[in-house]
Amino acid sequence: MNTEIEAIPAGAVIGILGGGQLGRMLATAASALGFRTHIFCPEADGPAAQVSDLETVAAYEDEAALTKFAQSIDVATYEFENIPLRTAEIVAALCPLRPGVRSLEMTQDRLIEKNFVRDAGATTANFADIVNVEDCAAALEQIGAPGILKTRRFGYDGKGQLEIKSCASAADVEKAFADLGRVPLILEQKISFVCEISAVIGRALDGRMAIFDMVRNVHQNGILYTSTVPANVDRVVIASAQDVTTKIAAALDHVGVLAVEFFVTEEQSVLVNEIAPRVHNSGHWTIDACDTDQFAQHIRALTGMLLGDPARHADAVMTNLIGDDVADAATLQEMADTNVHLYGKSETRPGRKMGHVTRVSPLSK
Amino acid sequence: MNTEIEAIPAGAVIGILGGGQLGRMLATAASALGFRTHIFCPEADGPAAQVSDLETVAAYEDEAALTKFAQSIDVATYEFENIPLRTAEIVAALCPLRPGVRSLEMTQDRLIEKNFVRDAGATTANFADIVNVEDCAAALEQIGAPGILKTRRFGYDGKGQLEIKSCASAADVEKAFADLGRVPLILEQKISFVCEISAVIGRALDGRMAIFDMVRNVHQNGILYTSTVPANVDRVVIASAQDVTTKIAAALDHVGVLAVEFFVTEEQSVLVNEIAPRVHNSGHWTIDACDTDQFAQHIRALTGMLLGDPARHADAVMTNLIGDDVADAATLQEMADTNVHLYGKSETRPGRKMGHVTRVSPLSK
Repeated sequence: MNTEIEAIPAGAVIGILGGGQLGRMLATAASALGFRTHIFCPEADGPAAQVSDLETVAAYEDEAALTKFAQSIDVATYEFENIPLRTAEIVAALCPLRPGVRSLEMTQDRLIEKNFVRDAGATTANFADIVNVEDCAAALEQIGAPGILKTRRFGYDGKGQLEIKSCASAADVEKAFADLGRVPLILEQKISFVCEISAVIGRALDGRMAIFDMVRNVHQNGILYTSTVPANVDRVVIASAQDVTTKIAAALDHVGVLAVEFFVTEEQSVLVNEIAPRVHNSGHWTIDACDTDQFAQHIRALTGMLLGDPARHADAVMTNLIGDDVADAATLQEMADTNVHLYGKSETRPGRKMGHVTRVSPLSK
Repeated sequence: MNTEIEAIPAGAVIGILGGGQLGRMLATAASALGFRTHIFCPEADGPAAQVSDLETVAAYEDEAALTKFAQSIDVATYEFENIPLRTAEIVAALCPLRPGVRSLEMTQDRLIEKNFVRDAGATTANFADIVNVEDCAAALEQIGAPGILKTRRFGYDGKGQLEIKSCASAADVEKAFADLGRVPLILEQKISFVCEISAVIGRALDGRMAIFDMVRNVHQNGILYTSTVPANVDRVVIASAQDVTTKIAAALDHVGVLAVEFFVTEEQSVLVNEIAPRVHNSGHWTIDACDTDQFAQHIRALTGMLLGDPARHADAVMTNLIGDDVADAATLQEMADTNVHLYGKSETRPGRKMGHVTRVSPLSK
């Protein structure tokens, strides 16, 4: 059906489910485009609410609060994929939710996501659904050891993951089950990769897409540490990753920004690791190095505008400030070609993303 | 006295006197650097409050509200120069006010400002203090006709100005006095200029300065219409204007961003037209074309950081969206290399600055 697209006018209110740093940077981008923002999240005084016009502090299960929220806004979006599906459905019934429920549904559960990715024509690591301890040994043999046992849901920043070696005993597997909380699991083949890259893409209401330059990512303790652009990988790798990313965005009928993380193998093939149906940490460099950054792009998409130009005017290295790293912020702020972005979190905790720093340098090509 | 400079830490609250678009963009810049903002202004729901954590709606004369505000913040600044001096003094007695009271004092009144500029070693148009109608005829003869009769205080965007021709009768002058509200006036010689340029400079707590590239400005109906960078004026003009700007910033002991508007004459001399002791409309292009923009620079200066790099990575033309111009925003947002910034003002009025648009192009040098 080819429906006429009606742009959401300046002055309208964008509701954001989730109140963390992604919501903060989305709210700021929205304000530059003349929109107001209304944050819905369970915790008061989060990073996003500090820079937003309106805030509702309520649980994602609070239907009355969600209804009031959805009725008071012009369009809704979400800043993370672990809000309950039911929450998204309640909001979507009352106002446009962009991206839609499907983008959440396909990416909240690793098993559903992996099957979706394969159906979309992309490659992933071998994987198997694991219901009980007995499944695991057979699966390990089938997909190839070592494997990584992951919770199907609510995993992020390396949480909910344990490596299972080929020599794992039933007792070891039993312990892993217990440690992961006896929730539904997936076993993934551990990939021996050359590097990790990610693609951040914007997709408009009319289906047109604009992709940012591919970045190379380095993780530490399961958490993204640096993103570097250009990624310095082979052209064929870039082309494959771009192709897969556009296929995934289209298959989700996604509206807004989406990120796809890839493993690049020795043989130059790209395996989809994870999809994030939202703005992504590996796209933060776009604030300092692109004409349109990922946050502005997301707002443009969900308000029905044409996408902005994702062209890059500088090389960039983004480094996360995790936990106590933030103590270096003042020093980093004094360095040349360096922009520090802090998230307004009052409490520093180990593993907590407190901010990021982007160092730019002249375009290398 | 060489006092140790103590930087204001992230998480601190920056109080902003004034709640318009300059406050809005300052608040956004402050949030990226990890600060909270508290807006003090007489009108509720203004552009700045929409993107700030805290807001006090009270008159600038409300000493109790000002005291409470000043006691609740870590540092204060102002987004426009027409707040009462007494307001600034009350705040400055309770917390650091940056820039200080002196920067306001020297720039609120055209007569004081002109004398200050001359004392600082710069050139202005000829001018005379006008107390009564009789003064005017003599002054016109003395400084050279035509002249512009301006209110000494509260003039902006061409308001509070009337041209007085050489053939003006006493009745004409009397009418001008009445039209301007019978307030203290200054008569300035009308300058026949080749172009208008402006300089935006940041000055840190330790006195170090960083100047943005000079821009060429075009006004319409007394309101800034476009700012273009590079300014395409002679090197000697740039050098003179930079020299004067640094002298003025130093003579004010200014902390933060300051703008100086100049007339450039046929003979390539630069005459100071006006000083704005704050971020300035002619510096808005820096958001889209500089490593550090004027808003971030102001926040850096007032929180005791080193200044950021004002280097420019693109050519730029900034156009104000005034009154009904804002109706074109949606169309402009679809254009390549174009960033539209809207201020969240719900009511469009003639002459009201509703937003601005910056078009960038590759560096011409």
